[in-house]
Amino acid sequence: MPNATERARTTRIVQSRHNSRVKELRAAFSHPGKGERGYIALEGELLLAEALRSGLAPAAVFIRSGQWEALERVAAKAPSRAALDTAEILELPADIFSSAVDTESPQGIAALLAPPRFDWDDLFPAHAPALLLVTASLQDPGNLGTLIRSAEAFGASGILTLPGTVNLWNAKVVRASAGSVFRMPVVARCEEEVLARLAAQGVTLFATTADGDLPATQAALTQPCALLIGNEGAGLTPHLLQAADARLAIPTPGPVESLNAAIAGSILLYEASRQRAASQREQ
Amino acid sequence: MPNATERARTTRIVQSRHNSRVKELRAAFSHPGKGERGYIALEGELLLAEALRSGLAPAAVFIRSGQWEALERVAAKAPSRAALDTAEILELPADIFSSAVDTESPQGIAALLAPPRFDWDDLFPAHAPALLLVTASLQDPGNLGTLIRSAEAFGASGILTLPGTVNLWNAKVVRASAGSVFRMPVVARCEEEVLARLAAQGVTLFATTADGDLPATQAALTQPCALLIGNEGAGLTPHLLQAADARLAIPTPGPVESLNAAIAGSILLYEASRQRAASQREQ
Repeated sequence: MPNATERARTTRIVQSRHNSRVKELRAAFSHPGKGERGYIALEGELLLAEALRSGLAPAAVFIRSGQWEALERVAAKAPSRAALDTAEILELPADIFSSAVDTESPQGIAALLAPPRFDWDDLFPAHAPALLLVTASLQDPGNLGTLIRSAEAFGASGILTLPGTVNLWNAKVVRASAGSVFRMPVVARCEEEVLARLAAQGVTLFATTADGDLPATQAALTQPCALLIGNEGAGLTPHLLQAADARLAIPTPGPVESLNAAIAGSILLYEASRQRAASQREQ
Repeated sequence: MPNATERARTTRIVQSRHNSRVKELRAAFSHPGKGERGYIALEGELLLAEALRSGLAPAAVFIRSGQWEALERVAAKAPSRAALDTAEILELPADIFSSAVDTESPQGIAALLAPPRFDWDDLFPAHAPALLLVTASLQDPGNLGTLIRSAEAFGASGILTLPGTVNLWNAKVVRASAGSVFRMPVVARCEEEVLARLAAQGVTLFATTADGDLPATQAALTQPCALLIGNEGAGLTPHLLQAADARLAIPTPGPVESLNAAIAGSILLYEASRQRAASQREQ
């Protein structure tokens, strides 16, 4: 971390809410990825440390006056300080800081950065059968973020988001992902392209639905496959249900109609991971 | 449902924010279960229908002026209208309604009711080995509600909440439970009592922790057991980790440190349910 002299040299103290970087930060929180440079914003030590650990380099780091320790703690957690050295560091009075960040009880540190970009080929691992998640009209940012975190945990190879899915860089998605969103390949494509390319690549498409007829425990989740997760209230459209190769059910002995979407998706990822580990042990 | 004449007879139109029932509703949203009569509050057609389906009888139902159809839709979903017939029905002008309910975009119907009460014995089913969830300092209401929903889905027999767990009747818990909170036996007890009674009843206590050493797939979850879920950030206290019979791990091939608490708990409930179904098939 910079010592006092370096700090004075590298830091700019912002005195106006209309500072262009502050406006960029505010815009990146409200419309992430949509500005001229496509920046996203994040807030808090944990997420900034996760971004650095994931190899991302912030364009700018914003520190609330008096919160220098936050930056020092982040730097201590990062594998290298190189990414911080290239960032513009701005110090903001508390009221300007609060005016630009997303949460009601803002931590003292935020950052502006270019998000990672992935393409179709990034979704397919070289040495393992693909395990994909496909989200259709998933609306709740907490659900999407949680699914991304679970997808990384259970070794999924990537995520396809169909139109209608909540913005990937919504601050609540980023928070709920606990940083996995910086690393998991996530690609947005239209329904037609996804269905055609998955079929062409021999990926079995499993619809997840409360009235599915194939118990997940009996589905062959060791093959290259994609798990299709629908809207929290309405589920999957008839067209997507029709397009799927099979409709998975999570066996539930209790009298409930359905599970939370993030829970259902995570359990299927767990089940796929469990089956794959068991089949490796057998080989 | 009452016809126009009955409606006029049974409904009271409230004109003041200081009406005693309106004050009771407001208090039940802000401090559920803590008032003189221990009432809780709920909002929305879906939850009111779930409460009726679960055998609960509201003390009062509050309707925003012009939203009579909401009550009619709820009555159509309920197995019997008896519970609605005994409820006091109050019609509230929109501003008074909004002043009393919890969410920012309130639906036009809310209710005040006595919550179900469960005791220790309700946690143990007569004909199956117990499957319990024990929450310790679980803080996020969405997580607790989601876990209750998953617990009912996977046939858990009950939930024990240790001190520090978020209020069971917090509106966000109720919403995330999708109504399961009206039916699942949930009992609040102190740590000492829970540990002593679980041991006395021969229930194996499994701690859920990111650095557990017993893979869930290898744990004997078919026996009477309890799954201990800790705080979202800090996990379980050393004392509880020590008190547990074993520390479960959810095998995750990916490079993540931990799973969301509701996801981890739900996956373990799924794994227990899967093992129990498999062992029944073998018998």
